[in-house]
Amino acid sequence: MISGLLMNCTKPAPSPLETKSEKSFPITLVLHGGAGTITRENLSTEKEQAYRAKLKEALDSGYAQLAAGKTSIEAVVTVVSMLEDSPLFNAGKGAVFTDEGKNELDASIMNGDNLMAGAVAGVTNIKNPIKAAFTVMTKSPHVMLVGSGAEQFAAEQGLEIVDPSYFRDAIRYERWKQERENKKRESPDKKFGTVGCVALDRFGNIAAGTSTGGMMNKKWGRIGDSPVIGAGTYAKNTTCGVSATGWGEYFIRLAIAYDISAQIEYGGRSLEEAASETMMKKLPDLGGDGGIIALNQQGEIVMKFNTAGMFRGYKRQGEEAKTFVFMDE
Amino acid sequence: MISGLLMNCTKPAPSPLETKSEKSFPITLVLHGGAGTITRENLSTEKEQAYRAKLKEALDSGYAQLAAGKTSIEAVVTVVSMLEDSPLFNAGKGAVFTDEGKNELDASIMNGDNLMAGAVAGVTNIKNPIKAAFTVMTKSPHVMLVGSGAEQFAAEQGLEIVDPSYFRDAIRYERWKQERENKKRESPDKKFGTVGCVALDRFGNIAAGTSTGGMMNKKWGRIGDSPVIGAGTYAKNTTCGVSATGWGEYFIRLAIAYDISAQIEYGGRSLEEAASETMMKKLPDLGGDGGIIALNQQGEIVMKFNTAGMFRGYKRQGEEAKTFVFMDE
Repeated sequence: MISGLLMNCTKPAPSPLETKSEKSFPITLVLHGGAGTITRENLSTEKEQAYRAKLKEALDSGYAQLAAGKTSIEAVVTVVSMLEDSPLFNAGKGAVFTDEGKNELDASIMNGDNLMAGAVAGVTNIKNPIKAAFTVMTKSPHVMLVGSGAEQFAAEQGLEIVDPSYFRDAIRYERWKQERENKKRESPDKKFGTVGCVALDRFGNIAAGTSTGGMMNKKWGRIGDSPVIGAGTYAKNTTCGVSATGWGEYFIRLAIAYDISAQIEYGGRSLEEAASETMMKKLPDLGGDGGIIALNQQGEIVMKFNTAGMFRGYKRQGEEAKTFVFMDE
Repeated sequence: MISGLLMNCTKPAPSPLETKSEKSFPITLVLHGGAGTITRENLSTEKEQAYRAKLKEALDSGYAQLAAGKTSIEAVVTVVSMLEDSPLFNAGKGAVFTDEGKNELDASIMNGDNLMAGAVAGVTNIKNPIKAAFTVMTKSPHVMLVGSGAEQFAAEQGLEIVDPSYFRDAIRYERWKQERENKKRESPDKKFGTVGCVALDRFGNIAAGTSTGGMMNKKWGRIGDSPVIGAGTYAKNTTCGVSATGWGEYFIRLAIAYDISAQIEYGGRSLEEAASETMMKKLPDLGGDGGIIALNQQGEIVMKFNTAGMFRGYKRQGEEAKTFVFMDE
């Protein structure tokens, strides 16, 4: 297991002394496009540039919304939708295939201001699962809807429904078929392409969202951590917002996203300390791997992973969007 | 909101001074059969006695297994299966009905020794969902399986499959139909009949399990907290085991079960303090209600709820099984 981390802790810009009600928070956006065996040896320069370009485009779009006074929830929906629409990532269009050759999608979102949350799992025809999660949060009394019921809800709410073939990326599908013919059920080049975003708006509200196609060749209606509030996604203004990517079973068993929040709330730890404990100690100790992005109300950012790489980036006030791929960046 | 709690904190029996490897732990079993508007006014003496008898029967059966040297996981599966088989509770046979008049069942289980966990959600033909959750934990690489995929897995593993009509309790079904005809979509007599069990075996292993039919008239493939590890169920030998029952959406948003564990782990709180903070402050502050049972490796038991009553009970070494229904017991 390679222990890599890029940004241990970034100091926020000093904020002006203001009364709390008038306080303006340092708008900040951080995102990921999955962690895994991402090395210079197995990622062509062309591919790398394509990933960086898409990450930057999403960062700039989400940040522009925050700068225009929109909320962190709106920015998260925008950013995650863009990554879902890109076949580069294992979410929405371009998702990995189940054992039966289908694309089954999961997503969740949480609002750190009021702890409202929404999630969908095992959906096959909702163009943007993150929008469905948002609609569950805002238009239903529920948090988590699965399968055909979730699809029915999304259709009733007027979300864009597509033919399941929309999600099938031709190149990924051919590779999947070849691997099955070769009876390589688990690709040795293990990649997690889950996408996620955490944002802080000027009002101090933190939002987090995650979307995925799940695990390659998954069977039996398997659901990972991405749609599980507390595992793949959590947001609470007074602690932090977190979006995860990795081996979902371990992330559920450790309640990864909430674990980071709880360390801050109950253990008095910094975001950096909490994320380090969870990702660089508890997760590898149990045998899992993956990564998280997180931020807090002070605009501190953490991007932590114990894999060879993680597609990731952030944008803060007065800075250009920054993107990263490999461990040593 | 009525704030009721029965057992604030029970002192464990003093344990003999032994080396850690030889240490014997005080075998303990605690269970619940749901929290809600359970008062003497709306529960007949006959019904009350039926509930108490079933709780006692389950306690004695589970405890006998622990006393015979079986593990806490085995005891939890036994106890929860017995409550699933009883039409008194909203789990397995006797589950509440979805908006379409079906029974859709959720369950989860966790082993506090190795943090292994299993869950199924939205299943309609597995006789004992808790056994399916156990089988997911022990016979699959996954934690959470949903819908027809979970049913296929259970069938492949040789679990007992029944016709969906098996779960339909005639009396509950008639009442449900009447309420729908009267357009009373939400019963004012809100009851949560989820069942759960937490056990400590002589080896010091804590296990927790939860099973439910979910929320009455649920739609769109709604899933509550019961099958969500960290929300409805959590177990960790070094902190505690928890099984929850209540308004599931709030339990997910607060990651109720893991929140109690995290307060012990990071905040140095006692089980009693942690459960009080979560159930009597955080949950009602957000607007939710329900209850939890929990225990730790010292054999301390907590049964905490902010509803009028909770079906509950426990059995410890050298004591008769004790059952409770109302707040003031």
